[in-house]
Amino acid sequence: MIREQMRAAEKVKALEWRDNALYLLDQRLLPQQEFWQRYETAADVAQAIREMRVRGAPAIGVAAAFAMVLAAQQHVANHVSDLSAALEADFSLLAESRPTAVNLFWALQAMRDCLATALQTEQPLKALEAQALSIFNDDRNANLRTAELGLQLIRETGSAPQHVMTHCNAGALATAGFGTALGVIRAAYLDGLVRCVHVNETRPWLQGARLTAWELAGEGIPCALNVDAAAGHLMQQGMISWIIVGADRITANGDVANKIGTYQLAVLARYHQIKCMVVAPSSTIDMQLASGAQIPIEERTGEEILFVGQQRVAAEVDALNPVFDVTPAALIDVIVTERGVVNQPDAQKMRALMQS
Amino acid sequence: MIREQMRAAEKVKALEWRDNALYLLDQRLLPQQEFWQRYETAADVAQAIREMRVRGAPAIGVAAAFAMVLAAQQHVANHVSDLSAALEADFSLLAESRPTAVNLFWALQAMRDCLATALQTEQPLKALEAQALSIFNDDRNANLRTAELGLQLIRETGSAPQHVMTHCNAGALATAGFGTALGVIRAAYLDGLVRCVHVNETRPWLQGARLTAWELAGEGIPCALNVDAAAGHLMQQGMISWIIVGADRITANGDVANKIGTYQLAVLARYHQIKCMVVAPSSTIDMQLASGAQIPIEERTGEEILFVGQQRVAAEVDALNPVFDVTPAALIDVIVTERGVVNQPDAQKMRALMQS
Repeated sequence: MIREQMRAAEKVKALEWRDNALYLLDQRLLPQQEFWQRYETAADVAQAIREMRVRGAPAIGVAAAFAMVLAAQQHVANHVSDLSAALEADFSLLAESRPTAVNLFWALQAMRDCLATALQTEQPLKALEAQALSIFNDDRNANLRTAELGLQLIRETGSAPQHVMTHCNAGALATAGFGTALGVIRAAYLDGLVRCVHVNETRPWLQGARLTAWELAGEGIPCALNVDAAAGHLMQQGMISWIIVGADRITANGDVANKIGTYQLAVLARYHQIKCMVVAPSSTIDMQLASGAQIPIEERTGEEILFVGQQRVAAEVDALNPVFDVTPAALIDVIVTERGVVNQPDAQKMRALMQS
Repeated sequence: MIREQMRAAEKVKALEWRDNALYLLDQRLLPQQEFWQRYETAADVAQAIREMRVRGAPAIGVAAAFAMVLAAQQHVANHVSDLSAALEADFSLLAESRPTAVNLFWALQAMRDCLATALQTEQPLKALEAQALSIFNDDRNANLRTAELGLQLIRETGSAPQHVMTHCNAGALATAGFGTALGVIRAAYLDGLVRCVHVNETRPWLQGARLTAWELAGEGIPCALNVDAAAGHLMQQGMISWIIVGADRITANGDVANKIGTYQLAVLARYHQIKCMVVAPSSTIDMQLASGAQIPIEERTGEEILFVGQQRVAAEVDALNPVFDVTPAALIDVIVTERGVVNQPDAQKMRALMQS
């Protein structure tokens, strides 16, 4: 029942695969403009990822998978003699597009694994396309499953409509489906459990103000925007009962890299005895890294802080612009994946989840 | 010795009184444009306060004092029969310009107290002007004294240059002198104790990016801007040894109202065992209010969040825009005023300070 309602709520899309090409909704232009761009080369998709025209850990993983199909199509059209060798440069280019989210590397590895068998078939392009579509559909289904599991957790804390807070955009625009953190929030809203979604604007890129607010407004889900610095004040007022966020990489011990500001939200949530839920597909989990200290944190240009659009807003100084931070597992109440729920995450529980 | 260096560092000014008029540097236009506007009426000054052309608790107190001189001048020029009665409307207008900072009400009360005796002199305008100038000079001297006291506290924590973090602008632009929080930081820099000032950009009005960074850059004090959501991450990295902020109102128990975001900085500082210093003239202390819960918190229009300049950046949603928050005394390590220093503030210590 709730799953049917959730499928009906799958309205916003970040990317589409059709006519042997990848279409991306340009997220730099939202909410002012809904502009879909057609991509036919891996290099163009890599640039779109770098420039954050497509963003969100699961979405860039899916985009990279389709980019490898585009690369293979192009090499085949150019009659390259060794497809596997030719694709190495494309793998590298895409792998270098953004450093923090692991879904990108996970998706590229899945495509690489597929390539070995695809090359032994008569239609390697078909096999690669099928693999990318499978990554796409798996992410979409993972969203639905994590939404159900997250909803269940919220139900357990009471039946009164609640005020939840989210950061950045972990919605349809960040995934192949209807979102991770925002998927849970959508499901909870459909279930009558959300009174208001408090959206941190999420400087410098304003994913909260531009993207999450746009998704919520489009569906009539009650929400209110606030500056990132007001999060603690809203918690202090006793308004917030859940912090629900996505993740860009989760390490073997349950540490979570996510958009800058997530760490301090988790500290504030713990201080105010508010529960902190992280929602992500299991492709976000990097069992190769023991802890969050090993996650490469992307630093982007300070100009993202110093300028708004073409206009310089700041004085003539430098800016530090780390765009992710690491929240230690100890500050996270629960990690929700399509494989199941991990309460008070630690290395043992994460291992059990991934072996399930 | 350090006081002479500090006087030499008094470069930036927020306001000036000359030719029987008040000149305000328009802080909405900084750092792009340094535009001084001449004010000749209390109504225009009240509007400048409302629109934040002049801002910062001590500076709006001083501006309001001079605005009362302007009002008296105008009434005398218009030959009003009852100056005292005529000034009531001006007192009210100015008192309603901003609700949270108490310095405004303190300065108006000081002008009202002066008026009673001024009216018994032959030159009431001269007496009122002298009172406003005295408020101006007292604030300037309070800055120098709090800077010395704050510097002493930093010296006690070691002789190595430190990384300090500040929020909003509690500098020359917020006072009649060279600043409260930024005054301490200036003194510490002159004393070789500052390696870098980490400036929170302070959304939505970007006082950190536009004003504090501009003041620091102008003096060559090393600084780096960051988004407000990165404060916790920088603390987690072990980079920050002091949080130093101003205040808009301090209640009888030591609770502090200051720019939105101060509360969460204080929570984060405590979590990371970083010291939190609040610097303010004693005119910021409101002994009439028992605790911070009684402080009126200004809510400004959500458009300050939804728009940057004329351009709408956010989706079609509402925004909550409380522009101050309250930090409980228990989260503050020390309050520095020109009357002295209060460690681990509480009601008894605040009473002792004000009776000293």
